[in-house]
Amino acid sequence: MRSVVSFYLCYLLCLGLGLACVVCVCLWNSQWRNGFAWDGSALQFNWHPVLMVTGLVVLYGIGAVVYRIPLTWGNNKLPWKLLHAALMLLSLILSVVGLCAVFDFHNAKNIPNLYSLHSWIGIAAVALFAMQWAVGMAGFLLPCSPISLRKLLKPIHVWMGGSILWLSIAACISGINEKLFFVLKGDSSGTQPYSKLPPEALLANTLGVLIVAFGLIVLKILSNPKWQRPDSRPEDMSYSPLLQEENE
Amino acid sequence: MRSVVSFYLCYLLCLGLGLACVVCVCLWNSQWRNGFAWDGSALQFNWHPVLMVTGLVVLYGIGAVVYRIPLTWGNNKLPWKLLHAALMLLSLILSVVGLCAVFDFHNAKNIPNLYSLHSWIGIAAVALFAMQWAVGMAGFLLPCSPISLRKLLKPIHVWMGGSILWLSIAACISGINEKLFFVLKGDSSGTQPYSKLPPEALLANTLGVLIVAFGLIVLKILSNPKWQRPDSRPEDMSYSPLLQEENE
Repeated sequence: MRSVVSFYLCYLLCLGLGLACVVCVCLWNSQWRNGFAWDGSALQFNWHPVLMVTGLVVLYGIGAVVYRIPLTWGNNKLPWKLLHAALMLLSLILSVVGLCAVFDFHNAKNIPNLYSLHSWIGIAAVALFAMQWAVGMAGFLLPCSPISLRKLLKPIHVWMGGSILWLSIAACISGINEKLFFVLKGDSSGTQPYSKLPPEALLANTLGVLIVAFGLIVLKILSNPKWQRPDSRPEDMSYSPLLQEENE
Repeated sequence: MRSVVSFYLCYLLCLGLGLACVVCVCLWNSQWRNGFAWDGSALQFNWHPVLMVTGLVVLYGIGAVVYRIPLTWGNNKLPWKLLHAALMLLSLILSVVGLCAVFDFHNAKNIPNLYSLHSWIGIAAVALFAMQWAVGMAGFLLPCSPISLRKLLKPIHVWMGGSILWLSIAACISGINEKLFFVLKGDSSGTQPYSKLPPEALLANTLGVLIVAFGLIVLKILSNPKWQRPDSRPEDMSYSPLLQEENE
């Protein structure tokens, strides 16, 4: 019982931090970076941080901990598998649109793509995520995948899931840091330099700290054995075909 | 037996990646950034990446997995505790000297300290590491610390240990990315811009990828339950006073 209460406190903190990340990244780009467009301008670039933080970090993290919620521990795991897959698919779609925003912006301005370390880490995170989603779908949702394969895949899937989150967070931290050096130069445009920590820098640095805190909480929830779904029973590893369960 | 072989393969990979990180960061700063000095110049700054990568990432990671080596699973855990504490202390000292290098350089050039997100994440990693070392020393090595405290501390110590490694890696990625944008401007100094991926950029980006790969392997080793020291026996949680064991 104590374990359930401490889980929900931790989960509430996770949701609160996730919401704070989304609010901060939207506020930063709408108020300090002049908002959004899809026209190859800097306003199109602004979708990039918003979609990556919202999709690849917050939605991903919330999707990752679905099975840790005691409410989902009923006999029928399938609806929660579908919710997990759906949240992850939405997260993947937002991430890919977020990548399109920056590729389009670069192409319109003749800026090369994928040269910085930030972009290497970020693209690796999204590519691994896409693979993880496809392998997860085939391995855990297709009726034909055998139990032995699921048992083999599960620890790899869990470990890869945590690793992808950390790659995403490293990409976000380096991206926010890079963006602030790009735009806060303290030149003739009248902006204060990053080194003077103007309000925009404080907000975006705080966003970085919130992202790290969110990641730590998600990884804490995932790593606590007491909060794992009690699914050592063999029937949980077996599979009732999708259509049959949906009709039940 | 299979588990031991796969551990040693993973451990060898971990050591190999760690060595590759140290070689890359030394090569980058000695060959492309003109080497080292301690005179407030850019040559003093060059100690910063070398010491942070060597201390806060590689030595830290190697120190973190000491207890996973089956060779250390004898009855007397104390020598390995001392080795773990000593490796971590050396890692902490290198990190602090690495911080001194950049603070001294900033002060000599009148550049403000601790404004960038990179510096916030990096200083948080080192501060948490110092706390973790002190609490670990008091909790697991002082003869007076009770078993109940050790049992309570252990999962927190392990989780904090992994989190500090990831914070360090996020700081390294953002730092390498930032440094390459600073120095590879493609201006009159004759350097090619970062966006053209000159050899220096390729080397430093590769360093970033190696650091991430090293971190993933260390976290993989730490998270595999089969590779954990079998110390559920109550005598392992008890403590034989330091002097007595040293005299044995």
